[in-house]
Amino acid sequence: MTSVVALDTRSAPSTSRASATIHIALLGCGNVGSAFAALVRDGSQNPLRITHALVRDCLRPRPTLHPAAERVVTGAALFTTPPDVLVELLGGIEPARTLVLEALHRGIPVVTANKSLLAAHGAELRAAATRSSTPLLYEAAVVAGVPFLSTFARRPHAAEVTSLAGIANGTSNYILTRARDARCGIDKPLADAQRLGYAEPDPSSDIDGIDAAQKLVVLLQHFAHANIRTDAVETTGIRAIDCADIDHAAELGGTLKPVIFADWTGNLQAFSGPAFVPLRHQLATVDGAENAIILNGRRGRLVFRGPGAGPEVTAATVLDDVLEAMTTPRPVAFPRLERVEPTTPETGWFVTLAGSRLPGGADIADLLSSYGIYLQRTSASGRERFAAMTWPASRARVETALRAIEAAAGATVQHGAARHSCVAKHFRALEV
Amino acid sequence: MTSVVALDTRSAPSTSRASATIHIALLGCGNVGSAFAALVRDGSQNPLRITHALVRDCLRPRPTLHPAAERVVTGAALFTTPPDVLVELLGGIEPARTLVLEALHRGIPVVTANKSLLAAHGAELRAAATRSSTPLLYEAAVVAGVPFLSTFARRPHAAEVTSLAGIANGTSNYILTRARDARCGIDKPLADAQRLGYAEPDPSSDIDGIDAAQKLVVLLQHFAHANIRTDAVETTGIRAIDCADIDHAAELGGTLKPVIFADWTGNLQAFSGPAFVPLRHQLATVDGAENAIILNGRRGRLVFRGPGAGPEVTAATVLDDVLEAMTTPRPVAFPRLERVEPTTPETGWFVTLAGSRLPGGADIADLLSSYGIYLQRTSASGRERFAAMTWPASRARVETALRAIEAAAGATVQHGAARHSCVAKHFRALEV
Repeated sequence: MTSVVALDTRSAPSTSRASATIHIALLGCGNVGSAFAALVRDGSQNPLRITHALVRDCLRPRPTLHPAAERVVTGAALFTTPPDVLVELLGGIEPARTLVLEALHRGIPVVTANKSLLAAHGAELRAAATRSSTPLLYEAAVVAGVPFLSTFARRPHAAEVTSLAGIANGTSNYILTRARDARCGIDKPLADAQRLGYAEPDPSSDIDGIDAAQKLVVLLQHFAHANIRTDAVETTGIRAIDCADIDHAAELGGTLKPVIFADWTGNLQAFSGPAFVPLRHQLATVDGAENAIILNGRRGRLVFRGPGAGPEVTAATVLDDVLEAMTTPRPVAFPRLERVEPTTPETGWFVTLAGSRLPGGADIADLLSSYGIYLQRTSASGRERFAAMTWPASRARVETALRAIEAAAGATVQHGAARHSCVAKHFRALEV
Repeated sequence: MTSVVALDTRSAPSTSRASATIHIALLGCGNVGSAFAALVRDGSQNPLRITHALVRDCLRPRPTLHPAAERVVTGAALFTTPPDVLVELLGGIEPARTLVLEALHRGIPVVTANKSLLAAHGAELRAAATRSSTPLLYEAAVVAGVPFLSTFARRPHAAEVTSLAGIANGTSNYILTRARDARCGIDKPLADAQRLGYAEPDPSSDIDGIDAAQKLVVLLQHFAHANIRTDAVETTGIRAIDCADIDHAAELGGTLKPVIFADWTGNLQAFSGPAFVPLRHQLATVDGAENAIILNGRRGRLVFRGPGAGPEVTAATVLDDVLEAMTTPRPVAFPRLERVEPTTPETGWFVTLAGSRLPGGADIADLLSSYGIYLQRTSASGRERFAAMTWPASRARVETALRAIEAAAGATVQHGAARHSCVAKHFRALEV
């Protein structure tokens, strides 16, 4: 259902261009694509021109594109007069994957901001780029406003990194920040985020942690040379968080943040989900739609922080990638990725209980300890709320213990259906 | 007094090398130079070899250099068999400047970590590099452990920055952090820093703000394309800070940090010196020897944070620069720098008074207001200490007002010599 709009009929073939004009094929003319086209149109110093655009609706007026458009209807038409660079801003897997692979196969440099595509097919795309020694740049795929991925690709000593932690989904972070500051649940901040355009009409990918998990997978391709399936990463979302959870986190000296984490010092461990972040941790102050990535290696801890999304920001990063793609030294050789099955780390857990008849704090601690879960500190609020920070434990162990608590707090049976009067939640905790 | 140690007599001339080995001339074999040589020696994957080393004492054993060294005694000998890249780690101006210019003139890429040289002669070096289209890289000159300068040189849209703030001197930051945490003055932390090797035996450049000012000048060459004399930047050091100043800063909700700041939205304004940083500011948590640079542009605020120095960290960054220099696309063209005379900004001021008979807080506020200095909030501690945060004002205005306070608090005349019984200090304040 997509169409190629050929915007410029060039007389000179691509091999004998007199001018240094860079001809761009633009796939996708949504918010980011339109912002990109506007930036190309308004840039005075850059000899750039969008010559083809793949759009969903070729009849819709597109003021940022060249007005004299010749319309064609298949992706294959993109390559009849090969562009100098393919900019892929479609999102999703197809037709993006096929067109990007075709471009790489033909030796046409590709710039993409598509983390879904990279997370699902990064190994294939990198292999294709290596085979034809063609640049493939994706700076805008993670923390779109802060350039650091290409940098590390060129700097092997800086890239000797063995763990990372970060906040990579601005929507979830905006929602949790607003919920904390307004002392409310996530419903109103989510509605606000949708109204402001931070969140999609269907916000699942953002608030269920999938977008962040995809970015984590891209980062692990980049830094750990690991090929990981996104659905193999422990991924939780922010839907279950309520106001009391956020208050309890504050009482225990922290804040709930949508975190990605990975450590490949030994076996690769990773997760994506809301986590308790101590206030002294560098991620604790990353608020609103801001993103940050912390990279740890033996030479220290590096932090890259800034805007994570937004059409203007993403478009500028994509355009810088286009300029980089034109001057990337050949041969291009991506390191081979190794297929890795991630494990889940043992971390401390931030645990909250809510119920109509909770056991006392000492009884809860005693019961948890019988399952091997030990509490560092607690924040009890009467008989109906309880929160605590545990010492490090596996996910399986903490979940077994909490199911036991829920049962002990009294599952009542009504008309044959079990109804828990106790709800236990658990969130991973970061250490400073 | 320096010597070239020719470490390898190559048979093949530089124009017809069969192997891809990169031949490095290393200027300076101090802490960083030795760490760099060790990294080159131990690196398995990189076809790198140090073929010449310029050292101060050619008889001293240098275990990290090639043992079969042929010694020569002038810098000119460096170029008899031209290296592929010149790594300048001498520090200071000469002979570094002459040798770097010679290398650039000959088209030999240069990597340097020398902020003094860049601050003093950056315009000349950049012009020389542009003339011969030769890479000149200096990632390790500012926040040595965090790669960002080369990144922005390649990314014109990301580099649309109009102001910056940062902590660029790890020694001063370590000293002020320790003084704050131990609730003491700076003497003991300074001695500790010297013992630990963070501070030079003569620490003036670090603690008088000069090192940070040089880094600011390098950043302004890079981001503002401005050619500024370091001595034209308002530069203050941390020597005058005492324990009470630090305590007062905490009372007023902030901390004293060695800050660099510049804004070139209009006329270029800049300073380097200890400043009051509100606790909510991103620089407030940059502690110890850590560094950070915040870049502000219309697309948001970007933060780069991490280790600022250390031989290992700096050597790794220099080595990454060497690898980048070998693949930097030509032509190399640095933007022309414009000679700019920086002005000093109007900022809030953190003011402390200590004396044996201070006026009351209301009288101080009244006197200051008669000089156009208005207080935002105060923190009085009896008759002998007073601290306050002012609304924005020029340096001249706040200094005139404080001289008046000192006079009013009663300069006593003893045996014909004026002795102030009141000492007023003023530090710039950052806004969140």
